Amino acid sequence: MSDKYAPTPEDKFSFGIWTVGWAAQDVFGSATRAPMAADRAVRKLAEIGAYGVNFHDNDVFEFDESDRDEKISSFRKALDETGLKVTTATTNLFSHPIFKDGGFTHNDRDVRRFAISKVMRNLDLAAELGAEIYVCWGGREGAESGGSKDVQSAMARMKEAYDTLGQYVTEQGYGIRFAIEPKPNEPRGNILLPTLGHALAFINELEQPELVGINPEIGHEEMAGLDYAAGIRQALWHGKLYHIDLNGQTGPRYDQDLRFGAGNVGGAFWTVDAVEEGIAKGQYTGPVHFDFKPPRTEDDEGVWVSAAACMRNYKILQDKVRAFRADPEVQEALAAARVDQLAVPTLAEGETFADLKHVEIDVDGLAAKGMGFERLDQLALEHLYGVR
Amino acid sequence: MSDKYAPTPEDKFSFGIWTVGWAAQDVFGSATRAPMAADRAVRKLAEIGAYGVNFHDNDVFEFDESDRDEKISSFRKALDETGLKVTTATTNLFSHPIFKDGGFTHNDRDVRRFAISKVMRNLDLAAELGAEIYVCWGGREGAESGGSKDVQSAMARMKEAYDTLGQYVTEQGYGIRFAIEPKPNEPRGNILLPTLGHALAFINELEQPELVGINPEIGHEEMAGLDYAAGIRQALWHGKLYHIDLNGQTGPRYDQDLRFGAGNVGGAFWTVDAVEEGIAKGQYTGPVHFDFKPPRTEDDEGVWVSAAACMRNYKILQDKVRAFRADPEVQEALAAARVDQLAVPTLAEGETFADLKHVEIDVDGLAAKGMGFERLDQLALEHLYGVR
Amino acid sequence: MSDKYAPTPEDKFSFGIWTVGWAAQDVFGSATRAPMAADRAVRKLAEIGAYGVNFHDNDVFEFDESDRDEKISSFRKALDETGLKVTTATTNLFSHPIFKDGGFTHNDRDVRRFAISKVMRNLDLAAELGAEIYVCWGGREGAESGGSKDVQSAMARMKEAYDTLGQYVTEQGYGIRFAIEPKPNEPRGNILLPTLGHALAFINELEQPELVGINPEIGHEEMAGLDYAAGIRQALWHGKLYHIDLNGQTGPRYDQDLRFGAGNVGGAFWTVDAVEEGIAKGQYTGPVHFDFKPPRTEDDEGVWVSAAACMRNYKILQDKVRAFRADPEVQEALAAARVDQLAVPTLAEGETFADLKHVEIDVDGLAAKGMGFERLDQLALEHLYGVR
Amino acid sequence: MSDKYAPTPEDKFSFGIWTVGWAAQDVFGSATRAPMAADRAVRKLAEIGAYGVNFHDNDVFEFDESDRDEKISSFRKALDETGLKVTTATTNLFSHPIFKDGGFTHNDRDVRRFAISKVMRNLDLAAELGAEIYVCWGGREGAESGGSKDVQSAMARMKEAYDTLGQYVTEQGYGIRFAIEPKPNEPRGNILLPTLGHALAFINELEQPELVGINPEIGHEEMAGLDYAAGIRQALWHGKLYHIDLNGQTGPRYDQDLRFGAGNVGGAFWTVDAVEEGIAKGQYTGPVHFDFKPPRTEDDEGVWVSAAACMRNYKILQDKVRAFRADPEVQEALAAARVDQLAVPTLAEGETFADLKHVEIDVDGLAAKGMGFERLDQLALEHLYGVR
Repeated sequence: MSDKYAPTPEDKFSFGIWTVGWAAQDVFGSATRAPMAADRAVRKLAEIGAYGVNFHDNDVFEFDESDRDEKISSFRKALDETGLKVTTATTNLFSHPIFKDGGFTHNDRDVRRFAISKVMRNLDLAAELGAEIYVCWGGREGAESGGSKDVQSAMARMKEAYDTLGQYVTEQGYGIRFAIEPKPNEPRGNILLPTLGHALAFINELEQPELVGINPEIGHEEMAGLDYAAGIRQALWHGKLYHIDLNGQTGPRYDQDLRFGAGNVGGAFWTVDAVEEGIAKGQYTGPVHFDFKPPRTEDDEGVWVSAAACMRNYKILQDKVRAFRADPEVQEALAAARVDQLAVPTLAEGETFADLKHVEIDVDGLAAKGMGFERLDQLALEHLYGVR
Repeated sequence: MSDKYAPTPEDKFSFGIWTVGWAAQDVFGSATRAPMAADRAVRKLAEIGAYGVNFHDNDVFEFDESDRDEKISSFRKALDETGLKVTTATTNLFSHPIFKDGGFTHNDRDVRRFAISKVMRNLDLAAELGAEIYVCWGGREGAESGGSKDVQSAMARMKEAYDTLGQYVTEQGYGIRFAIEPKPNEPRGNILLPTLGHALAFINELEQPELVGINPEIGHEEMAGLDYAAGIRQALWHGKLYHIDLNGQTGPRYDQDLRFGAGNVGGAFWTVDAVEEGIAKGQYTGPVHFDFKPPRTEDDEGVWVSAAACMRNYKILQDKVRAFRADPEVQEALAAARVDQLAVPTLAEGETFADLKHVEIDVDGLAAKGMGFERLDQLALEHLYGVR
Repeated sequence: MSDKYAPTPEDKFSFGIWTVGWAAQDVFGSATRAPMAADRAVRKLAEIGAYGVNFHDNDVFEFDESDRDEKISSFRKALDETGLKVTTATTNLFSHPIFKDGGFTHNDRDVRRFAISKVMRNLDLAAELGAEIYVCWGGREGAESGGSKDVQSAMARMKEAYDTLGQYVTEQGYGIRFAIEPKPNEPRGNILLPTLGHALAFINELEQPELVGINPEIGHEEMAGLDYAAGIRQALWHGKLYHIDLNGQTGPRYDQDLRFGAGNVGGAFWTVDAVEEGIAKGQYTGPVHFDFKPPRTEDDEGVWVSAAACMRNYKILQDKVRAFRADPEVQEALAAARVDQLAVPTLAEGETFADLKHVEIDVDGLAAKGMGFERLDQLALEHLYGVR
Repeated sequence: MSDKYAPTPEDKFSFGIWTVGWAAQDVFGSATRAPMAADRAVRKLAEIGAYGVNFHDNDVFEFDESDRDEKISSFRKALDETGLKVTTATTNLFSHPIFKDGGFTHNDRDVRRFAISKVMRNLDLAAELGAEIYVCWGGREGAESGGSKDVQSAMARMKEAYDTLGQYVTEQGYGIRFAIEPKPNEPRGNILLPTLGHALAFINELEQPELVGINPEIGHEEMAGLDYAAGIRQALWHGKLYHIDLNGQTGPRYDQDLRFGAGNVGGAFWTVDAVEEGIAKGQYTGPVHFDFKPPRTEDDEGVWVSAAACMRNYKILQDKVRAFRADPEVQEALAAARVDQLAVPTLAEGETFADLKHVEIDVDGLAAKGMGFERLDQLALEHLYGVR
């Protein structure tokens, strides 16, 4: 593989410990790979060129915490020795049977209390390890049937949880911001805050909305048939893209968690274009994070091939989107498609609604005029193909 | 058919003029029914028991407005004679070729100006006819390809349009509120504000957010595989459900616009449960509106059978959800499923995060305890079946 | 619950041992229920009124077969004591890591040989226990990526496996027929023979096609957005519906395996209508089999509530479809919709193509005539609602 | 654009007259382009390098046939002058209101007779113009509701139609073969023969199955979430791929008919790989046919940009799949993934089932061994990206 696409610290590539560490057990079969200790994941990720990691508490130590100190110590040692950053942390509120109905919105009040408590304890560790973002995926917050969840109360409890955690990090002076990760379904029939839009709307109801943004995942939005690049562009516009989860998916079906680049190849191109726009405008400052699962068919070697390919594909596409945006023919096609006019306010300086009451335009001319989108999209595709 | 389910004015059932008036032309074939004048639609809807109507400007008169006065006059005459209310109005910014790239976010600035102007002119008519809600479906606001729309600029232009229209209705003292209707795709490859969540998030960025709520449609949310009832419950919680579009759909595919009750039968039950919750709590005050298309196979008689069935199905389901909620066994099952606990705050009066730092609960006991959701859902299904 | 819907042996209701026995482990979390021995499943299924069971070899004993004799013995004892029939059997070719790339079409020839061998051994047990149908779900026969499977060769190997197994049961005189269970995806990115159509086509290439039919599952077909009732009606027409897997699903997403009746409520009505048509015409002679998973939220009590509800919902719907078909108004509506004309050959007795060369019909009259489908479907819906 | 990708007659690229001729009217809006006469379509297609065309009767002349002779004459003149071949023909049995419930399976017997007659008349023209393939898309053969179609009778009528047409072409000595084009839904709620699998199964029931194959369309299969490349590989294996419809789609949603290459970019790569395999093995002898719709945003110039890009993208991808297959590292990776072993029969020469009764393999070793699919797929992706 060409050095040109080798990852560097400036790329800020990060991985969840659980991604490469997934032992590949699914609903229909048992694990095909050995469990991986967090410190091994750190060392191997460093080897292949990653910059940082994200971790759930129970990626490092057991739910019963019997091995907590020992495992944190070896995790920290690996971080120190490799220089890998903990960019992000998160809590596992979905694997243990106690969370079968969720955490923050579990029908049982005791479980809700326990869930908030578990997050607080891992926030302490996250702060110690230097994480600046704390991801919250409410994978079990939902229902299979319409009567089993009082949705309005669930929203109130969700708000209560985030408000409480916001007070906690503020009081502790942790400098940590939260990023909600939406998902439409699986493992629950329907999950609360199913898309990035629902999560953005929810955040506005919080006591300290500035503490909370979103962490949209490619696969999760595409499971709802939504365009990920358009979604994160909306989130950037709201100033709320705090983290990203890049991976691959093939439309509405089970959560595939393919490596980044696989699945929706065209979507990955526009995703990198959108992320790079956010970085260039200073709207996105988080890591370029991958949340994927090496397929169950792969052995340990395949795991690292797959992980390395996530980063490599990002860099290949970064190259391509830069070339696309720099191509004079593309710039001409963008202008011909009047894409640039959209940045111009519809009302001129000083105009009000009154000036729009009786607008005169060339209706027939504009109706007949083509938009030139096919030419523009073909240029993009040829950049993706690498034939320009 | 039993009188028990006959519509009354208290039901506030309303229809779009374009629903029963659809001549049934689609991408693959020509119209199978004659065009229907708005005044005929009004008279027939009154006959079958509707309370109100919604209309696009071009449901009443032509785009070139050559027949504007005459057609408004006969529309108004029909309204007066039948007593039907204009509950809602809207603008057609999608049929004419000039709107091929949208209205508020068309790349061409002239078209954007024309679009806002067209809305303002129909707001005047809406106000005259007594509409209190003004629906905005941005069906052509979107793109087939990633490069043809600058999404962040599009969001800014969308905001500019709503802010301008908000100033206009405020200045005119119209007492009209807007309701954004989201849709994920079709007729564009991807549409801006694709779900009710995205629209709710957007509204928070407006100058006068209180003027703008949402008008979610069953079919549009279900095209993204989302649960409509859960979605409108979130919207009710935000205080933003200003209008509803009821119809039928069978999952992710083309926009079917089936009559209400058809398609997702179980979803319709929970939808009525959610709407009735909103009405009972004073969170929803709009009409019970149907936005459907009588299938292309139907003649004029079939159109009215289909329209009448929308209302009848709502009333049948209303009966069922009331019986479900009143059933002592259901109430017992809800309590067993701990659904009621979700209304109880997670923190006790006076508690703060500090009280949650070290929560002691019976982990093993709670992990082993079943939620009882299957029993509860089976009770709901038997109410739907009418066997309880 | 009313006795009217109590299951009887004549209903021929059967369940997979793995359905009620599922310990509820998924990709995102560990088991919430204890493992269940096959003999316990048999006894409990008998208690709730089931007629028969289906089993994978490894539902009864371990993959390494160390407990084979002992477990078969207790399984058989439970069958004997309860009188439950083994209607069907099947092989687990998907859980163990060795089957990570499938069984019959695994790229590795050794695994393919082992897979056929494993089926042969369980066919012996199936025959001993009296099974007449042997289901084959090729859940891991597929790929996540286009290059990793040579599809034409895979089809040839699939044919080789079925031809070999056909020779085996013929030689042994087992009187067992095979039923292929299609699925579009999950746990593989794309699975070979993804729909019942693909499986029906494949069967025609076999040496002994009469030995092989299909076992379509509601959820699997609906994951592809397909209409299950229409699908099994096509299979009945081909004379190839050898078995059915009833459960519930909500459109394209992960395989939900909801109890029968849940999910697509309207689809369940038409499914029972189609199954009953097959039984009435002698086209379907297998059990009414349920393949569902009690949700992970349920404890042991919930498992049996859910299982019992599958049978109860079938009987409720059976009642409804019979009432629908017997309703004189429905019969009149069917005739008005000209549904009955479809049973009349298009060519009259003795006519040939030559008689159709210049057909004269009333084009304008037929073009204007409505089909009356909305009225008919509303009648069906009211039968489903139980309001007629 | 590079000459390297310029179309040549050897490429056998063909287009439907209705593709470039689509005036861009949809359910939500009126036409944005002028109607295009068939002869103009022919001349322009010749200019951009097409080899052949496909046409519906009513692409050339009106349904009432008032302009039949005149329009056929100018169509033929254009064909003669340009040298374009009529590779394929088809009948429009879906646009006129008389076909609102289909053609071959319309509930009304008179319409069914008329439909067969209409096909026969256009078969005469097809034969005259030299077409060898006759496509049948039954777009309106289906239903929105379960009771409105007697599916088993519909299958019998479908068979009757194909048997009758088969007798006709045989009798006339036309040398024409039929190709059924499946589609899951739209414009009907559910369409009969929804996938290529269902169509392949159906063909086996015909009197002269050798006369009938399939014409699968990328978008139609992908609307059901199915893998098109795997589907056509199964069809090639059956010897039944008589024609192909290439275009672009983005998963389950409305029928997008994007230009080939757009939509599922990765899928297009594997599609070309599968088509080229079929051609190389002599399994596919038809044209490389495009069935797309230039988006409604485009003017006439955009139409031809879009059409030319279909061919160009095919040639670019052809280049890439050839390079992929020729790459020694790919060949090595294929062998490492044991893909080549799948071409080796599972039973050795002379072996029977008896030899498989007790197979001994290295279970643990094979269970632990990775498949190497990620490495292989990454190589494919890099060929697609053009970075190898």
